[in-house]
Amino acid sequence: MNVLIVFAHPDGQSLNGALKDVTVEILEQNGHKVEVSDLYEKKFKAIADKDDFLVLKNPNRLNYISEQYHALKNNTFAADIVEEQRLVTRADLIIFQYPMWWTDAPAILKGWFDRVFSYSFAYGPGRYEEGNLKGKMAIVSVTHGAENLSEYGENGIKGKVEERLFNIQHEKLYFCGMTVLEPFLFPAGADEETRLKHIQDWKERLAGLKDEILVDI
Amino acid sequence: MNVLIVFAHPDGQSLNGALKDVTVEILEQNGHKVEVSDLYEKKFKAIADKDDFLVLKNPNRLNYISEQYHALKNNTFAADIVEEQRLVTRADLIIFQYPMWWTDAPAILKGWFDRVFSYSFAYGPGRYEEGNLKGKMAIVSVTHGAENLSEYGENGIKGKVEERLFNIQHEKLYFCGMTVLEPFLFPAGADEETRLKHIQDWKERLAGLKDEILVDI
Repeated sequence: MNVLIVFAHPDGQSLNGALKDVTVEILEQNGHKVEVSDLYEKKFKAIADKDDFLVLKNPNRLNYISEQYHALKNNTFAADIVEEQRLVTRADLIIFQYPMWWTDAPAILKGWFDRVFSYSFAYGPGRYEEGNLKGKMAIVSVTHGAENLSEYGENGIKGKVEERLFNIQHEKLYFCGMTVLEPFLFPAGADEETRLKHIQDWKERLAGLKDEILVDI
Repeated sequence: MNVLIVFAHPDGQSLNGALKDVTVEILEQNGHKVEVSDLYEKKFKAIADKDDFLVLKNPNRLNYISEQYHALKNNTFAADIVEEQRLVTRADLIIFQYPMWWTDAPAILKGWFDRVFSYSFAYGPGRYEEGNLKGKMAIVSVTHGAENLSEYGENGIKGKVEERLFNIQHEKLYFCGMTVLEPFLFPAGADEETRLKHIQDWKERLAGLKDEILVDI
């Protein structure tokens, strides 16, 4: 199948970069067609503003969603948004690879959602089960730096990690109709042995992707 | 007291802009000293990268947190980060005024946290009750566009709105030791009467800020 990896880390030599490289390698070995959108490499514009539209429906006020609707209908989105939307359209599965910063995605990836997952492209009027990206799958693959993993436990101060991912998994991906597969969580502070074990598990999961079991989130 | 308003909306004429203006007006009428950081107006850089540091501890790899630690110790943060940190330092209360985009802050505000709330300035080694911004208060003031408010109810598809704010209120503000006051939630799609009632409530709350009741979140 066609897989898009949206990669958001400022250093390609990082653990996140290594995970992205492993993902490309294993998926290509298994006959999938992989494209990578490296947001830092392409200096992706994170900030949603009037420059996202070649023509403004209302030049005096900025109603961003209204302009998104107008731009999609008239093919007047800025070129970088058009390119990312093409990548999304081609993909059967999108893997988001990023470090958890402030229990969230880095701003460059948040900006990708603000600008690319536009009204009437990704959702609207349908949402959730009727979202416009219905039929596509998504995996959130994040590294996180919690020193003590129990911080994410049932009674941990951060709550359950799945709850921290609700804002992306449920309210962005599922909101647009995507089928959200189980996330891949990588504790960046783990010892070498644990890290290798995680990478091995991830490789095996990627190699068997066609057998992926759909999970509710 | 000293109040900082961090404002993140691309259009100053918007509902968010109006709420920001009302906040400034009422607080100044009540003798508070108010500063506004208008992130869009100052074209705030949202993306955390190596340009955030005048000198790099390690020019070959980017460990962002390690560089943050180095920069604070050596006064080598980029000028815009220094300026925002000065605003935070001066403030007794910070009000965040923004529209909820994707159940989250706009990327420009997420980037403000990524870059300004740095390790050893805002947190680290202490976190939560020992966070470095202990003694300061915060209010999250957001407009949200849920057409049907029950979407945010106990059994709503978005879950409880307080849970959607956990990633900012608990994992950013309280993480840094701040006392998080009750959020101000403004349903952007409400009718005129309801909107006026909300604005009146907000004005009254601001006018009585010294009597603010601290709430757990």
